[in-house]
Amino acid sequence: MEWQPNRFSHLTIQQQIIDWIKQRIQSGEWPIHTKLPTQRKLAEAMGVNRSTIVIAIEELVADGILSTRVGDGTYVSNNSWNVLIKSNHLDWERHISSSIYEPNFQTIQLINEYEQQEDIIRLGTGELSPELLPTAALQRSLQNVQIAARDIGYSEPKGSKQLRHMLSQYAMKRGIHASPDSIMIVSGALQALQLISLGLLEPGSTIFQEAPSYLNSVRPFQSAGMRIISLERGNRDNNLLDQITAMKGKKQSLFYTVPTLHNPTGSTMSLDERQELLQICASQQIPIIEDDVYHELAFDEIPPSLKSLDSSGQVLYIGSMSKTLSPGLRIGWVIGPEPVIDRLADIKMQTDYGSSAFSQQIVRYWLESGLYDEHIVKLRAQLKRRADFVEEILRSRFNSIATWNKPTGGFYIWLRLREPLVNKALFLKLMKQNVLINPGYIYDAKDFYHIRLSYAYASFEQLETGLNILYEAIVEGT
Amino acid sequence: MEWQPNRFSHLTIQQQIIDWIKQRIQSGEWPIHTKLPTQRKLAEAMGVNRSTIVIAIEELVADGILSTRVGDGTYVSNNSWNVLIKSNHLDWERHISSSIYEPNFQTIQLINEYEQQEDIIRLGTGELSPELLPTAALQRSLQNVQIAARDIGYSEPKGSKQLRHMLSQYAMKRGIHASPDSIMIVSGALQALQLISLGLLEPGSTIFQEAPSYLNSVRPFQSAGMRIISLERGNRDNNLLDQITAMKGKKQSLFYTVPTLHNPTGSTMSLDERQELLQICASQQIPIIEDDVYHELAFDEIPPSLKSLDSSGQVLYIGSMSKTLSPGLRIGWVIGPEPVIDRLADIKMQTDYGSSAFSQQIVRYWLESGLYDEHIVKLRAQLKRRADFVEEILRSRFNSIATWNKPTGGFYIWLRLREPLVNKALFLKLMKQNVLINPGYIYDAKDFYHIRLSYAYASFEQLETGLNILYEAIVEGT
Repeated sequence: MEWQPNRFSHLTIQQQIIDWIKQRIQSGEWPIHTKLPTQRKLAEAMGVNRSTIVIAIEELVADGILSTRVGDGTYVSNNSWNVLIKSNHLDWERHISSSIYEPNFQTIQLINEYEQQEDIIRLGTGELSPELLPTAALQRSLQNVQIAARDIGYSEPKGSKQLRHMLSQYAMKRGIHASPDSIMIVSGALQALQLISLGLLEPGSTIFQEAPSYLNSVRPFQSAGMRIISLERGNRDNNLLDQITAMKGKKQSLFYTVPTLHNPTGSTMSLDERQELLQICASQQIPIIEDDVYHELAFDEIPPSLKSLDSSGQVLYIGSMSKTLSPGLRIGWVIGPEPVIDRLADIKMQTDYGSSAFSQQIVRYWLESGLYDEHIVKLRAQLKRRADFVEEILRSRFNSIATWNKPTGGFYIWLRLREPLVNKALFLKLMKQNVLINPGYIYDAKDFYHIRLSYAYASFEQLETGLNILYEAIVEGT
Repeated sequence: MEWQPNRFSHLTIQQQIIDWIKQRIQSGEWPIHTKLPTQRKLAEAMGVNRSTIVIAIEELVADGILSTRVGDGTYVSNNSWNVLIKSNHLDWERHISSSIYEPNFQTIQLINEYEQQEDIIRLGTGELSPELLPTAALQRSLQNVQIAARDIGYSEPKGSKQLRHMLSQYAMKRGIHASPDSIMIVSGALQALQLISLGLLEPGSTIFQEAPSYLNSVRPFQSAGMRIISLERGNRDNNLLDQITAMKGKKQSLFYTVPTLHNPTGSTMSLDERQELLQICASQQIPIIEDDVYHELAFDEIPPSLKSLDSSGQVLYIGSMSKTLSPGLRIGWVIGPEPVIDRLADIKMQTDYGSSAFSQQIVRYWLESGLYDEHIVKLRAQLKRRADFVEEILRSRFNSIATWNKPTGGFYIWLRLREPLVNKALFLKLMKQNVLINPGYIYDAKDFYHIRLSYAYASFEQLETGLNILYEAIVEGT
């Protein structure tokens, strides 16, 4: 909302506000039952006193255009001045509430919303800071990106052939041998999960994951009616195989994992753990989705990818440029058995006709020219500095109230408080102080001990300020 | 598939082919039960004689790696040399066949596949020809597209604010008053339909459409379990209102329409028809989806959009750059009541985290700089020339076997044969002669009279050759 009243108009500020609200209702932008922004928000956005808003709303209530419910805000009223008779108004709300997709978790919606504010300190954001993005280099590179007419028409189902060739070579570095035909381009890793959910699973299928899991914060499987089962790792009395055997239903299953620089915990599976997981899933005929979007950000050597250890086509591998180059590109890829890739590509064509050709050509250029490799080396060093900086603060202030593992790459530190204080109240309290955290319960609904800290997003200054505010809020809570 | 044997290798061609096939099986790219391409296709792709392929396959069959089923091709065999025991192999086929999404129509899959071939004449392709795309201007404009760090991170749910501002101004030209908050960016019009299907409808909802309909060639609603009901327009004994009343179920309904330069028929609804449709849908409380992606390509004046006539928020409006600037951008938009847009944006975030920031900035630059308007004027003139050219051929050759309406813009001529000859046999026969058509039965399963001709894609020379082949094929069929 960016409209503001014109101080030089012949109309009063109040009348301009009334006209503006009426206009939105008349145009159908605010249909019946729409809840208006709070008076405080309207006043801020329009740059006027709250009392001016109060008077304008009172007048519209008197006219029967708006109605207020005590303690619940202002709504577009039923008996609107609109010329259409009441029964003609569509009840969009009914459409929304009974549809297939579940509304996003409220905490996540709040995070999405408040992230957009200017002065907020984002301690949990799983995204490169603007200062870590190679913006100037991307801008410069646009001059060298070659666009041919055949590239900017509708795409082949699997995406640009040239880019898939590059990715085929690039995957070799991760020990993966895949021909361009076994690779498809997607608009980021999340879309890959969405396509897998729509294209490979029947409703009621089981998705196994480790607790905690990134998957709990997004809903491609839940919304399609899949059962999500979280397994405990490192639990000696209850090993992975027993858990899977006990909980595997009659329908299909998939195992979703981030084995390298895990989201949210930052941990990396050892080679032994990888081989065990492959073997267990093979014995149970459960395909694996390997989400490998962080591996290039490791500070040290990492074990080979699950896909490189897979000779039976049981692993679907997901890669992405979002965590390393730019989320705005919306470019990721899936590597897997060719019939599976063909199927996913067919659904992608039915969903959005392919990913941006311009983004694909930019990624191709960055890989081909070596710019990408150069960038990654620099980025890793910068992330390492940030990780050290945050750990230093943690060591000096959080030692008595929390534990954590030394970060080995990626974005995250999975901070564990000694007391279960990480609840919605803490989240909201911090939000009021302009500090956004990603509480552990987003990733494991029953976890009130953890916070996913990210050293990738906020500036050094913000990290220091934000962590101090976090510390105070926690100490006040104990 | 692009691998070819190396003629200078110390291995025989045949041995190289055997190794290559083994490698694909071993890497998991061709899992058990995968059907191999036909021997003819393999021979062509590898540039070898078919007999070489036959011998290689025979050897692999003898080894138990492949098996052949008479009349049904060659498959990766059960008792493969692979070290994994049989039960360990995943049955991806089961995953594929029982999943939510229906496989694409076979004719459409064939079209998608053969479109990629070099020498095919595409008489039905609903896409701008490479020579109509402003490739050079797009390439040049990349130098002027400004990229800021905040643009290339994860996007706001509704997409770039700057682009939505531009689109808000741009929509005014179409008589639509929409604030940037009532607009969301999508990755093309098809994704808009997909989001509406997931976000606003419960399974079993009814989608009304006019017969024939573009919607029958894509499946965003069908795959989500909606009922699709085609209504006959211009049928005096059975008016629209009666049909809707009779077929409206207990669940929600939507009316999907392309009122301007309709796909596939090319026709445009009059103002009276628009007002009647709005009024009928209002009386039945049925929201309307107005798919308006062709309107800028009209050769003459067109009536106002449904959205501009809508004061109650009953119309969701879809626009796109795919038919006018470049499909490779993957940029479209939806305009509607703000709560509906908020909802769709939330689902978009859960689906793919927004559209390419680079594409969005390119579109913004083209709108802002006036390049877009200039391009449209030129494009319209070029399409008009092509329409005249095709009509001239039709007049001189097809008069005795078909009828059609003079095109008034867009891409299409809805050619109606006097006999019901447009069946799959005709489609396949033409495909063998390197001519691809879009048969009417894609848009209306019981229609064997029509062909959707597009004058937008093929070159003038190809249009002439293709139409001559089409004419001969039809005449032979009568």
